[in-house]
Amino acid sequence: MTESSSDPRPLRLARVREHLREAGVDTLLVGHPPNLEYLTGLRASSGVLLLDADRVRLIVDFRYAEAAAVAIAGLEPAGGSMVLAERSLDEAAAEAIKRSGGGHVGIEAAHLSVKRRDWLAAALGGRAGPFSLVPTERLVERQRLVKGPEEVASLREAGRRLASVARDLARWVRAGQRESDIAAELDHAVRLAGFDRPAFDTIVASGPRSAMPHARPGGRILASGDAVVLDFGGVYDGYCVDLTRTASVGPPGPDLERCHRAVLDAVEAALAVIRPGRLASAVDEAARQALARHGLEGAFGHSTGHGLGLEVHEEPRVGRPVGGVPPAVLEPGMAFTVEPGVYLPGLCGVRVEDDVVVTPDGYELLTDAPRSLIVV
Amino acid sequence: MTESSSDPRPLRLARVREHLREAGVDTLLVGHPPNLEYLTGLRASSGVLLLDADRVRLIVDFRYAEAAAVAIAGLEPAGGSMVLAERSLDEAAAEAIKRSGGGHVGIEAAHLSVKRRDWLAAALGGRAGPFSLVPTERLVERQRLVKGPEEVASLREAGRRLASVARDLARWVRAGQRESDIAAELDHAVRLAGFDRPAFDTIVASGPRSAMPHARPGGRILASGDAVVLDFGGVYDGYCVDLTRTASVGPPGPDLERCHRAVLDAVEAALAVIRPGRLASAVDEAARQALARHGLEGAFGHSTGHGLGLEVHEEPRVGRPVGGVPPAVLEPGMAFTVEPGVYLPGLCGVRVEDDVVVTPDGYELLTDAPRSLIVV
Repeated sequence: MTESSSDPRPLRLARVREHLREAGVDTLLVGHPPNLEYLTGLRASSGVLLLDADRVRLIVDFRYAEAAAVAIAGLEPAGGSMVLAERSLDEAAAEAIKRSGGGHVGIEAAHLSVKRRDWLAAALGGRAGPFSLVPTERLVERQRLVKGPEEVASLREAGRRLASVARDLARWVRAGQRESDIAAELDHAVRLAGFDRPAFDTIVASGPRSAMPHARPGGRILASGDAVVLDFGGVYDGYCVDLTRTASVGPPGPDLERCHRAVLDAVEAALAVIRPGRLASAVDEAARQALARHGLEGAFGHSTGHGLGLEVHEEPRVGRPVGGVPPAVLEPGMAFTVEPGVYLPGLCGVRVEDDVVVTPDGYELLTDAPRSLIVV
Repeated sequence: MTESSSDPRPLRLARVREHLREAGVDTLLVGHPPNLEYLTGLRASSGVLLLDADRVRLIVDFRYAEAAAVAIAGLEPAGGSMVLAERSLDEAAAEAIKRSGGGHVGIEAAHLSVKRRDWLAAALGGRAGPFSLVPTERLVERQRLVKGPEEVASLREAGRRLASVARDLARWVRAGQRESDIAAELDHAVRLAGFDRPAFDTIVASGPRSAMPHARPGGRILASGDAVVLDFGGVYDGYCVDLTRTASVGPPGPDLERCHRAVLDAVEAALAVIRPGRLASAVDEAARQALARHGLEGAFGHSTGHGLGLEVHEEPRVGRPVGGVPPAVLEPGMAFTVEPGVYLPGLCGVRVEDDVVVTPDGYELLTDAPRSLIVV
């Protein structure tokens, strides 16, 4: 993150501060690393940002002192400060909060552990003290849901690079190869394509194992007639992309052909729905209806997609509505995967996955590589 | 995990049940993935184990149904059952708990989020209901701290494989290479050595960046005269190992030579302390004293080591005592890193790291590779 006129952080902080006000929070304690990175540019496995209406305080341990000093120098030079935690981050955070005198301290309820919350509550004087801890949700995440132009640019470049790896898949998939060896080669290719690391544990699932949507690559050796699901991703400039293609070792049998045709129809049906104003759940529904037309609606057990950004699974949820949470309404800048699959236990599985970002009049495909069955 | 006479899980469950009794807990809700894996053998990114005095219930979503069924079949055939969560894991857990009628439900306070705790508390009827949620700590971790023979065997094999990668380090480090490219090659070598994945983001820090203990590999190109810190690890059979060596591009300058000599002394001094009955903090203290004899005690900002097991950072803490927590007393079966370092800002850094397991009369070195400065 450089200090420049296009620095996106002041706008991000301003918007989260609006959410703070609405939530009746004086100080928000941000400790979830992707939220910390989004607001400050600091990439750290741990750290605490105290966000008030008029200042930011970034608390880190010695490991990140240098990086945090750089981040804070470019961030609100008037009101930002860096605190080096001598003991624990929470101890330093409690001391910093106590200097404010009193107020409502927002915590990230979905991320802070019960242990840390209880410790902070006691350190701030308990129920009788001048502070109250307020559980909050999505104060930063709701902002992260719609990507800014600089984030879309990172996702676009990441997608372009991941698609280039996908175009080479036939180089690594062949009879006699072990799933785990193919996964190792694929991960290496992802790194050579410029990614910092895989975005998740690569899936290479062959033969009957292809029917397990989350199979780990194992010692199974690919044989003629196998379907092979290859699901891999990378982190580029902090942003995650995710892609799946399916291969056939030798000419595909009728089950694999039929399933693959159905999944391609489902991908296209789902993509056709994407534009601002539509529900994310409608994208999922379109994929399911396409599979139903092939008589395969019962063979698709997961959601059609998930949001992408600083995390590989984030909002929006692209699936059936659950637990009374209303589905997201699509807006330009939302980024997610479209990944319908069909799984016939004991026989074969097929999944095809691409990444998109919603545009004012539809979507932009981030991962432009042929979707056809890769016959090797 | 296979169903065999040497299955370690019944013993692990029995011991954790003793801790439950001592903590006054009727049912423990285990959701931290390494704890789940330790007790059931299930490797899953999410899941919930309900552990009572006389039965276990393993709750997973459809992704892990097959794997959980296998795990539970071998686990207490008399009293175990698998629950497939139709909606959320916590909803299924609450329903299962409610069938018990009442009691003290232990939660893992260090791992469960405030949001999930609050949701569970409400789902179980709140304060007026028949259940109370009891924050617990280390009921499973205290058991994981001392490795069983089957765990030591996995760590030993993992260490042997990681040491073989370390012996080849000179192949990848040379002037003109980019840090990030060396990291990619190193990660590939770790995979080819049989590891499932790197245990953490590999560090390749060269020149002045070697003085930053947690530098990420970047675009810096290695030049003659550089110190290069290479810190990498792998996960094998679920277990994490971690190793660091330092290289010199061309003949080392006097600073690098002096620092490396001091760090080797610190490693040896720390190792010499390791045996049952000694404090983990004494291992750290020995390393610091060795560095002090070289006048470098101020140049070592982190702890001497950390525990290894299903997580790459776990107990015991091998550092200065903090926050009133008494240091661990070493016991046979404890596994940890020994990794003193010296960092001269702007000049150079050196770290050397090996992994050990405590034995009845000392320690076993898991990562047996030359510690000398690798001059390339």
